[in-house]
Amino acid sequence: MFNLKFLSNLKIFFVLILSIVVINLADVRQNCAQTTRVSAKGFAVHSQDGHFHKHEFTRHAVGDHDIQVEILYAGICHSDLHAAWNEQSNFGIHSRYPMVPGHEIAGRVTKVGKSVTKFNVGDFAGVGCMVNACRKCNSCSVGKEQFCEKGAVFTYNSKDQYHENEITMGGYSDTIIVSEYFAIKIPSNAVISKVAPLLCAGITTWSPIKFSNVKSGDRVGVAGFGGLGHMAVQYLVDLKTEVTVFDVNDTKRDAAKRMGVKRYVNVRNPQEMEGLNNTMDFIITTIPVDYDPLLYVRMLKMGGEMAVVGLPPNSNINISKLPLGNANRKIYGSLIGGIKETQEMLDYSVSNNIYPEIELIKAETSEIDKAYQKISAGEVPFRYVIDMSTLR
Amino acid sequence: MFNLKFLSNLKIFFVLILSIVVINLADVRQNCAQTTRVSAKGFAVHSQDGHFHKHEFTRHAVGDHDIQVEILYAGICHSDLHAAWNEQSNFGIHSRYPMVPGHEIAGRVTKVGKSVTKFNVGDFAGVGCMVNACRKCNSCSVGKEQFCEKGAVFTYNSKDQYHENEITMGGYSDTIIVSEYFAIKIPSNAVISKVAPLLCAGITTWSPIKFSNVKSGDRVGVAGFGGLGHMAVQYLVDLKTEVTVFDVNDTKRDAAKRMGVKRYVNVRNPQEMEGLNNTMDFIITTIPVDYDPLLYVRMLKMGGEMAVVGLPPNSNINISKLPLGNANRKIYGSLIGGIKETQEMLDYSVSNNIYPEIELIKAETSEIDKAYQKISAGEVPFRYVIDMSTLR
Repeated sequence: MFNLKFLSNLKIFFVLILSIVVINLADVRQNCAQTTRVSAKGFAVHSQDGHFHKHEFTRHAVGDHDIQVEILYAGICHSDLHAAWNEQSNFGIHSRYPMVPGHEIAGRVTKVGKSVTKFNVGDFAGVGCMVNACRKCNSCSVGKEQFCEKGAVFTYNSKDQYHENEITMGGYSDTIIVSEYFAIKIPSNAVISKVAPLLCAGITTWSPIKFSNVKSGDRVGVAGFGGLGHMAVQYLVDLKTEVTVFDVNDTKRDAAKRMGVKRYVNVRNPQEMEGLNNTMDFIITTIPVDYDPLLYVRMLKMGGEMAVVGLPPNSNINISKLPLGNANRKIYGSLIGGIKETQEMLDYSVSNNIYPEIELIKAETSEIDKAYQKISAGEVPFRYVIDMSTLR
Repeated sequence: MFNLKFLSNLKIFFVLILSIVVINLADVRQNCAQTTRVSAKGFAVHSQDGHFHKHEFTRHAVGDHDIQVEILYAGICHSDLHAAWNEQSNFGIHSRYPMVPGHEIAGRVTKVGKSVTKFNVGDFAGVGCMVNACRKCNSCSVGKEQFCEKGAVFTYNSKDQYHENEITMGGYSDTIIVSEYFAIKIPSNAVISKVAPLLCAGITTWSPIKFSNVKSGDRVGVAGFGGLGHMAVQYLVDLKTEVTVFDVNDTKRDAAKRMGVKRYVNVRNPQEMEGLNNTMDFIITTIPVDYDPLLYVRMLKMGGEMAVVGLPPNSNINISKLPLGNANRKIYGSLIGGIKETQEMLDYSVSNNIYPEIELIKAETSEIDKAYQKISAGEVPFRYVIDMSTLR
């Protein structure tokens, strides 16, 4: 009996030991997987000369809650120029080189961490302007992760405190790894080549339109008719508002008409600027270069609201000019949008066939350089999108 | 018959002629009355040296719809300093000399035009920052005469297009003539010596509190605890909000406590400035000298509103700093208030015993000069009021 019992116990003991060893081996394998950085390639600027070069680098490993996305399309935002050319030091944002820009990313999931529930391999996924935040603070808990009190991690040129302070690299590349929470589900019926710019230009204009409760019948203005502006126009026309567009030349007059704009104003034509003061319920200014903000504030009705989403380097308002001549018009800034809101915008856009107007360019340094020059000169279509499948 | 009828007709004819002559004579008398300018005396600055001198001048006659008011009390507003010292050229406001400042006026009606219905001789009447407007344009028709599209006529240093473009003279004087529409009824039970500052400091703070729908339980801030600030505090405490006051020293800490303020912050004490960001529903900035507006914008919660009512000469906001770090906080300016709103404020204030804390000074040049120096140095009680009965 004793011997038998002893042997039985010994058997149990060995089974236990074996189990621990197996579990630990699995853990070791998992840990190995988690610490294996992922090779990536793309396009980087190496200094504020602003020229792109092919660039190979690594990204953090695919963690339990992460997905890896093969990037199919990457939009070029005017902010990318500001960042690549180190033009945001006024705002305390300093460019770190080499920099791989790009925060308008649409792709396909190629790998999922073991705890991922939102995505399967093969799904479309989008990544916008941010890739991490604490998810616990007041801002995060109300779905405004972009204002995370511990600092959101932006998609490029940002120190990632959740990954050993590595500097994030953006979408002008072949692959990206991101927490599933910060990835946006792209419906399978989406026109995938056009989705990328929704992740910044779409949400950046959608969010203040919702915040200001813009409604059918309102008279609204969109200042700056570029990547952001033409998304704002589409959402505002969809809302059945009466839209006036402001730009600095006539090149997009026909496009505005086609999109359902009521009035197109070339702000350099004094006649077209007449009669506009005190007429608007809402204005969104997407202009990324310097202008006089009071020009637009004056166009608001009493109680009207102006949302600033463009980032001109040196456009100031003397606050005493608000009571004097512009009283009871509200001005605020808006920055991208939270994850929940971005998902809502994307679902709505795809369902209602609202997409940016894009021009696809090849994933080549000369093409990206040329696009940057065009954007800087204001000779931009609404959005350039890099077709990353052409990357060799 | 014929003769009798002829005589009868002749009699009627003469009666008719006589009536016309009498009526015309009455009209001539009335016209004479209307063109007789009224002698006035008071205190004027003659140049931007800013020193006051006794000054005799005339005011336009008492028209059919006008009242003449014996000025009993005139408040001294910080704006009076800006105007007297020609410090508003930044805003396109140029000082005209000699200038009799004063737009916080409380007095007693001494004469009424023949069509006046709102006042009787002997009534109390108040005059605030404006004395005329078109009363027909969009702004006037919604009770915002201060924004009259044809230009409101302000109480001093303003060209009065309704009275042959004479330059208006303000309340540091013995009498004023104003259209009954632009005069405010002061209830007979008012503490008349304290009413004058309600006509500017009262309405200037009351109006944005209403415009922003501030409500019981809100966390609110009052930046600048002077003439305007202490009125804002009283209205906000009355509304049962939780009030934080900001000033640049500790001299009024006790006064704030006495008025029911929850927290007093000396903005020059870094410790007291801690923990305030993202906490306020509403802030009113009454500060008349330069400061950093973003300091207060940052204290607003998302969706919070900041009303600018003070007029610092060179306080600017770089608008890109609104999306970057201060998004979804609304900023607007507010300027005094319309006539209807001013009457509501005054009735409410008197009914609820809400008055400015004042220090009466004599109507003497040296006293006014001294008050200006004190205000400029920030060594001001909440409001100096000139007791015009002491004018000799």
